[in-house]
Amino acid sequence: MKTLSIRKAKKTDAPLILDFIRGLADYEKLSGEVTATVEQIEKTLLGNESKAHCLLGFADGKPVAFAIYFFNYSTFLAKYGLYLEDLYVPPEERGKGYGTQMLRRLAQIALENDCGRFEWSVLNWNEPAIKFYKNLGAEPQEDWTLFRITGKALKKLAGTK
Amino acid sequence: MKTLSIRKAKKTDAPLILDFIRGLADYEKLSGEVTATVEQIEKTLLGNESKAHCLLGFADGKPVAFAIYFFNYSTFLAKYGLYLEDLYVPPEERGKGYGTQMLRRLAQIALENDCGRFEWSVLNWNEPAIKFYKNLGAEPQEDWTLFRITGKALKKLAGTK
Repeated sequence: MKTLSIRKAKKTDAPLILDFIRGLADYEKLSGEVTATVEQIEKTLLGNESKAHCLLGFADGKPVAFAIYFFNYSTFLAKYGLYLEDLYVPPEERGKGYGTQMLRRLAQIALENDCGRFEWSVLNWNEPAIKFYKNLGAEPQEDWTLFRITGKALKKLAGTK
Repeated sequence: MKTLSIRKAKKTDAPLILDFIRGLADYEKLSGEVTATVEQIEKTLLGNESKAHCLLGFADGKPVAFAIYFFNYSTFLAKYGLYLEDLYVPPEERGKGYGTQMLRRLAQIALENDCGRFEWSVLNWNEPAIKFYKNLGAEPQEDWTLFRITGKALKKLAGTK
């Protein structure tokens, strides 16, 4: 198994990150939903004030993995948690242990930031992933459902027209 | 319906926030899980570098609502979202529209921060809440399950002992 070189993304990585995002969307057959741009990526992921972060993994200098994460919160602990929004390895680079190395680094970042937990969401039909995550000791939080409000309904709730 | 005075929490509110957290835990019969302290609340919610935030709602000067939120991320949009971690109104203050006023302010904060979405999680058995949220136009994301890794399993994944 090749050892990845993993580092935080920097400003000049924005086009590479956009390629990864498009690859991920393509794989999920959701390309039509991508509106991300290089400028938006620079602002939200790569700026000094960015509230979300990107890790890149390289094998022999070639980018083969990317992860987007941010810090969430446990009210009862009054501690942050690390939330992994996306982890992607292109199809031709899979089965080489790269995903596991990215998860390990993210777990280290969680501990370095005194996080009480490390979380991510999985599609319910993705049984191989669910099995893999359970083997790592991750526990499904099956009692909860995420609700989302967007677009016109969000504006209506805010009282704007 | 009384109009709440809603503002961001400040350093001196930490003891009040801890009271709210204990009230919430008590209501959920999870008091044993609270390890939050005034110091930890100051650091994680009320500091200049805090990654999570707290809103307080007052009726005639009396604190009657609190909300904890942070910014999450949509990779495809390369935009932040607003995630509501907890919203609590003490039992004796319910049914007065305070929760809705807090949600409205949070929706405004989401729009002010160019967020593509506003999200929160709901316990699956909480049918009155689910009905209320659906009426607001919120959509359940039922295809996903949250996985969580904590404690020894998190340390093991990180490779620390």
